[in-house]
Amino acid sequence: MLTGIDLTRKMAKADYKTAMEQLEVRLPALQRKALEARVPVIIVFEGWDAAGKGTMMNNLILPLDPRGFSVRSMLPPNEEEQLHPFLWRFWAHTPARGRITLFDRSWYRRVSNDRVDKSLTEAEVNQSMSDICSFERQLAQDGNVIVKFFLHISRDEQKKRFAKLAANPSTAWRVNKDDLKRHKQYNQYLRATEAMLARTDTDFAPWVIVEAHNERFATVKIFTTVIAALEEGIAKALERKANVKATSPSPNGADALRSSVLDTIVLNKSCEREQYRSKLKKRQKRLRELEHQIYMRRIPVVLVHEGWDAAGKGGTIKRLTQRLDPRGYEVVPVAAPNDIEKAHHYLWRFWTQMPKAGHIAIFDRSWYGRVLVERVEGFCTEAQWRRAYREINEMEQHLVNFGAIVLKFWSHIDKDEQLRRFKDRQQKPHKQWKITDEDWRNREKWGEYRAAVDEMIYRTSTPRAPWTIVESNCKWYARIKVLDTVIAAIEKRL
Amino acid sequence: MLTGIDLTRKMAKADYKTAMEQLEVRLPALQRKALEARVPVIIVFEGWDAAGKGTMMNNLILPLDPRGFSVRSMLPPNEEEQLHPFLWRFWAHTPARGRITLFDRSWYRRVSNDRVDKSLTEAEVNQSMSDICSFERQLAQDGNVIVKFFLHISRDEQKKRFAKLAANPSTAWRVNKDDLKRHKQYNQYLRATEAMLARTDTDFAPWVIVEAHNERFATVKIFTTVIAALEEGIAKALERKANVKATSPSPNGADALRSSVLDTIVLNKSCEREQYRSKLKKRQKRLRELEHQIYMRRIPVVLVHEGWDAAGKGGTIKRLTQRLDPRGYEVVPVAAPNDIEKAHHYLWRFWTQMPKAGHIAIFDRSWYGRVLVERVEGFCTEAQWRRAYREINEMEQHLVNFGAIVLKFWSHIDKDEQLRRFKDRQQKPHKQWKITDEDWRNREKWGEYRAAVDEMIYRTSTPRAPWTIVESNCKWYARIKVLDTVIAAIEKRL
Repeated sequence: MLTGIDLTRKMAKADYKTAMEQLEVRLPALQRKALEARVPVIIVFEGWDAAGKGTMMNNLILPLDPRGFSVRSMLPPNEEEQLHPFLWRFWAHTPARGRITLFDRSWYRRVSNDRVDKSLTEAEVNQSMSDICSFERQLAQDGNVIVKFFLHISRDEQKKRFAKLAANPSTAWRVNKDDLKRHKQYNQYLRATEAMLARTDTDFAPWVIVEAHNERFATVKIFTTVIAALEEGIAKALERKANVKATSPSPNGADALRSSVLDTIVLNKSCEREQYRSKLKKRQKRLRELEHQIYMRRIPVVLVHEGWDAAGKGGTIKRLTQRLDPRGYEVVPVAAPNDIEKAHHYLWRFWTQMPKAGHIAIFDRSWYGRVLVERVEGFCTEAQWRRAYREINEMEQHLVNFGAIVLKFWSHIDKDEQLRRFKDRQQKPHKQWKITDEDWRNREKWGEYRAAVDEMIYRTSTPRAPWTIVESNCKWYARIKVLDTVIAAIEKRL
Repeated sequence: MLTGIDLTRKMAKADYKTAMEQLEVRLPALQRKALEARVPVIIVFEGWDAAGKGTMMNNLILPLDPRGFSVRSMLPPNEEEQLHPFLWRFWAHTPARGRITLFDRSWYRRVSNDRVDKSLTEAEVNQSMSDICSFERQLAQDGNVIVKFFLHISRDEQKKRFAKLAANPSTAWRVNKDDLKRHKQYNQYLRATEAMLARTDTDFAPWVIVEAHNERFATVKIFTTVIAALEEGIAKALERKANVKATSPSPNGADALRSSVLDTIVLNKSCEREQYRSKLKKRQKRLRELEHQIYMRRIPVVLVHEGWDAAGKGGTIKRLTQRLDPRGYEVVPVAAPNDIEKAHHYLWRFWTQMPKAGHIAIFDRSWYGRVLVERVEGFCTEAQWRRAYREINEMEQHLVNFGAIVLKFWSHIDKDEQLRRFKDRQQKPHKQWKITDEDWRNREKWGEYRAAVDEMIYRTSTPRAPWTIVESNCKWYARIKVLDTVIAAIEKRL
């Protein structure tokens, strides 16, 4: 996309002034409209060293309300960040609805500089490109406006700029050895950049090449592009708002025909107290040994627990962690999203809580809420939860590619057993806090939840991030099964 | 997606009869509606050997109007088909608007059976999965309803069915050695199938698992699913029709800011007659030698020629082919699509004309019409031509992955030169046929076309399918440049 681009484009001072007078009024007006319409905006600045990314970003933010935007300078990942999949830190920085985030360098470092400097394999580069496309698609479908600028200057221009910076004592520090080394390899970076632009130029997040030899031309182009993108994004958001439809009912009889993985589950599996005690002790000891080994080997582990109310998730998680070194794991309880979380993509809050390499994260409920409670209660549209299966598979695949062990457990009991436990909770004073009106309301929708669980399990059971259905009418049996599954998966990896 | 699926699902005869009475009336009614709304429908039948794909398809087509559907049994690719990229033959069979195509096996063979039998590499499997997703996305965005069934039976059930078939002399022929071999490797195929289902289960083309132990249950599930998909697809088509919007005008001043690759082109390059004659002869001889070599090496070559009216594309193509062996190349002139072509995805007619391995296809105008004439004249929506950049890049990438050399030429002249040539054509009786009113009308839109050409070139110039801008004010210079470029690209590959 860069070959042959005319880099001589200029703009006269007078024309620039006239243009900017208008643009500097329109941009903040649109920022306010975007806030009102709750449109999140991502602006990426990529480009050659010394192409003027900093100057351009400064020009762009000047007329903006500083309470509404953030600038993120994305340096190469630090030690902490390297212990996570490469998109992790970018997910954390995605803007809340109505806010603007400017990225000075971005996730594209992975497939440009890193590709050349760290000699990633073709397979890694490919995988990263496709992870980037998924990431941007997920955000775009969630209403994010994504503008990606590539600031383009020629090799000669870069040389001139470096020489000028180096000649001036007050700016000489800005040109370092790495810059000069990269300058020498301009053509190698050019090839990587061309491949990156071609592969990630999508209809939902297109690249805009900015001819950056002339600052005035570049500034006006950037303002004009951002303004057009904001106008379009705001118009679409208002349209979507007007068009929200109720979830359409399933066609007649479809319910009886849906696929099921739960129907075959035989729930009367059990375990004796003595056997349970001795097994539990051995398993817990083994798991602690394994916790140490995955720490040494830097393997992240993600354990997801979902299940019926009163199925015993909490007790199982307690037994899982009882003997673990608390520095090596974290239990993440997931409740309804708070306002800040609601203002982001629904996966955002989970991304930020993923374990770093060598650590275990145990999710007590999880991102699967999207296709369970949010689906059944109508908290999201049908298009949103249908899309979620793929988004979830993509996220888990990204974790697996990074080397994570991902295991998902569905604690399964039948409706009678749930009733017995609910009543038990009501009768015993020390358990009463565990049962609420909501539990009873959910119970009335057992059939709908069951359909959602079935579809969730079969659509998101993948060879490298499988679901395990845990027969939980007997809690002892359930706990041992979960421990056994976790131990087997870790041992297999080691 | 298959693990744990309950395969014991059944339906009683009486229930089946009641259900089918309704379904067999609704399905043909929807077929008529789909025809009216011009919705193309793709129904894929995949599944285990002996799972009953044939029976299910027969049941499904029974109530349909036979004039409106086709059944395609996709055997392993024959010799001819193996000389094309694997999606080629499926593109050819995509349904026209309003028609239904049932695929008995499909493009998924590549990532299921072939994966196991031919031991494709991980990279090939990955690439194929992502090609399949692009293929289905392109069709879905074009309005195709895509229903994908996987008919699931257990290993034991398969064994039983094979035994039953083998025991009966009239059906014994249906169980061959390969079937039995595959049966033994059921678990290996299961792993490949699981990976395939997970990776290609998208919101625009989701998989439906059909529990196929019980024929009645499976039949009702298939009918119900197809009916629901048709209803949704037809509703969406009518909605789209009501919502078609005019292309929104570019924001103020955006035109002056657009990126350009044409601006830098210096058109006064030329070549002397004597030099031209001697160079032409040598190059044509060399190209003929290379034609032979690419035939021996089975390399397909795709040459695309686009350019201004009267820029000399025709003359260049003539010089390219003058000395070639006519069995080794084909010139494909591209005019406005006919009615049959209009009833398909715009890429369909080009897919069917791609050269087989070892052959050269020279396109005189091409799929780039989508982002040139169709864009400028408003023959497609803005969303459609914006999407097209990616669709085109994906198609060319698919060709390149198959081993093709893909080169694209833009014959470039300036507006004055065009005027001179137009006048020349009007004045000389033997050239008058070459100039029409349309040429003059197009010329009035020079600026809009120029913007479209610029965007086309930079968005679709990729390292492995590059554009060459051919300075064509001097025809002799242009012809030699094209010949040189083609020769260099082929020599580099050899």
